[in-house]
Amino acid sequence: MRIGIDIMGGDYAPGATLSGTVLALSEMPAYIDFALIGDRSLIEDYLTDNRVPRDRLHIVHTSEVVEMGDHPAKALNQKPDSSMAVGFRMLRKGEIDGFCSAGNTGAVLVGASLAIKSIPGLIRPAIGTILPSLDGPGNIILDIGINPDCRPDVLYQYGIIGSLYAKYVTGIENPRVGLLNIGSEETKGNLVSRSAYELMNGSTDFLFVGNVEGNDLFSNKKMDVVVCEGFVGNIVLKEAETLYTIVRKRNIQDPFLEKFNYENYGGTPILGINAPVVIGHGMSNPVAIKNMLKHTMEVVEAGLCEKIKETFNNG
Amino acid sequence: MRIGIDIMGGDYAPGATLSGTVLALSEMPAYIDFALIGDRSLIEDYLTDNRVPRDRLHIVHTSEVVEMGDHPAKALNQKPDSSMAVGFRMLRKGEIDGFCSAGNTGAVLVGASLAIKSIPGLIRPAIGTILPSLDGPGNIILDIGINPDCRPDVLYQYGIIGSLYAKYVTGIENPRVGLLNIGSEETKGNLVSRSAYELMNGSTDFLFVGNVEGNDLFSNKKMDVVVCEGFVGNIVLKEAETLYTIVRKRNIQDPFLEKFNYENYGGTPILGINAPVVIGHGMSNPVAIKNMLKHTMEVVEAGLCEKIKETFNNG
Repeated sequence: MRIGIDIMGGDYAPGATLSGTVLALSEMPAYIDFALIGDRSLIEDYLTDNRVPRDRLHIVHTSEVVEMGDHPAKALNQKPDSSMAVGFRMLRKGEIDGFCSAGNTGAVLVGASLAIKSIPGLIRPAIGTILPSLDGPGNIILDIGINPDCRPDVLYQYGIIGSLYAKYVTGIENPRVGLLNIGSEETKGNLVSRSAYELMNGSTDFLFVGNVEGNDLFSNKKMDVVVCEGFVGNIVLKEAETLYTIVRKRNIQDPFLEKFNYENYGGTPILGINAPVVIGHGMSNPVAIKNMLKHTMEVVEAGLCEKIKETFNNG
Repeated sequence: MRIGIDIMGGDYAPGATLSGTVLALSEMPAYIDFALIGDRSLIEDYLTDNRVPRDRLHIVHTSEVVEMGDHPAKALNQKPDSSMAVGFRMLRKGEIDGFCSAGNTGAVLVGASLAIKSIPGLIRPAIGTILPSLDGPGNIILDIGINPDCRPDVLYQYGIIGSLYAKYVTGIENPRVGLLNIGSEETKGNLVSRSAYELMNGSTDFLFVGNVEGNDLFSNKKMDVVVCEGFVGNIVLKEAETLYTIVRKRNIQDPFLEKFNYENYGGTPILGINAPVVIGHGMSNPVAIKNMLKHTMEVVEAGLCEKIKETFNNG
């Protein structure tokens, strides 16, 4: 299996991306190798200076860089030889099995949708992430920002792809799907959530457990998957992140709170496109980069894209 | 000034409401007295058993109780002699200056809208609460649940009433209003937030500081007021509450995290109705009840309802 990484993407690239890849080298199985996509001389210098063995590393030289300030929709066209654009081309051609980048998130999303494309039958791809849980492996929450407004049928499909993620990546046999709402009764909520509830209720495509609320997010008592519009999901996630930042600044040590450290998750997969793409946090440090690579491997090994394709082709 | 309290409302009523009122008696100024609305014999027994001086206490006997399971829209009509229904009638007649209840929240909201009514010119009342802040008095966030879906002009008006709250209750001279969103640029967000941004931008009714995000909620660096649809506000609030609950269960002691303790806030005012009503948490203990009474006093003393009426009558 070969995983491509955008060496030039991220606030601390290429230092953090290169040292994160070296960490991954030692922790990830020997059958995984890496395509390091970026400026050859920078990469060569780093590998030489740090005496990194190269047998599992393949340098793919690129001359341009998508910057954080670049316009997401224009960046990849304007910089066709950027590490990000080349990564997407390699993934499309099957030269790598998965691609990850901690660079400009908007540009990664645009690249994924244009170069890799949505799975036929799926209305909208989503990005998901795992929320820390007190009593289980955590809930996957989607969408967390691609689609601020979602139609009820889009939320319904998120129930399907979230379940497939929970089943094949997290390893939960029969994942329970909750609809994020503001009350447990089916009449509660806003227009979209009430319509989505009606669609989901009695679904045979996934195990719908009804509405879940803001106070259920950090527990697996009720559910394994949380479905919501990207607007709400993004705010929920940033709220949790900022509380973690505060806790850390205040030197509070606690194993549960440490689960909120984004470094542990490494990245969020784009769910519902034809090949595995994982987005890292812009501020990724080497540990986060290592985990982004690991998570990309998990998504590839789970065959998640194929499972989603099969589901929608049969549906 | 006379404040009415629904002695029968709340999970631990009347024990918690009575002992909370007694706490308030000793901490609140001598010119404040209390109408204890509820079952006379229960109240008399408590006051006698605890040798509570009665010079600032006025018992108003009622024979019915709105239960937590009662239908919010029907409860007050079905139970006209309930403590809650009587409290609203007294408030409407001016027999009390403010009313507070930790009972069935839905019924309190219905009672407020039917008995006390919205201020003319205001499209929708809201409920707000203060979010803990690292570096200031906290942000008032509204709406937190009355209106799951809000039109952009409703959000605009929330900017006005939130500012009036921050100015006259919190005491901030020129409150800054942020629109809760998923990016700082004006093009970010869902349909409602983008339209609301356009309306708010350049407002002369309040000081609009643009979009704020989930990671800004616990700081006053950017704003004093956070405006959002009730759907999002409710989820944001319950997420913060559940994190506090977790922290508390894990025996983590920290002065900042302790600010998340709902007991400190006591209650959330209904903003935009003709007289002061404060809703307490269903699970209120005596300290929370005491703070609910204090907060009701603050809202009455600030003349908040009059300020909102004046603003909308002149607008």
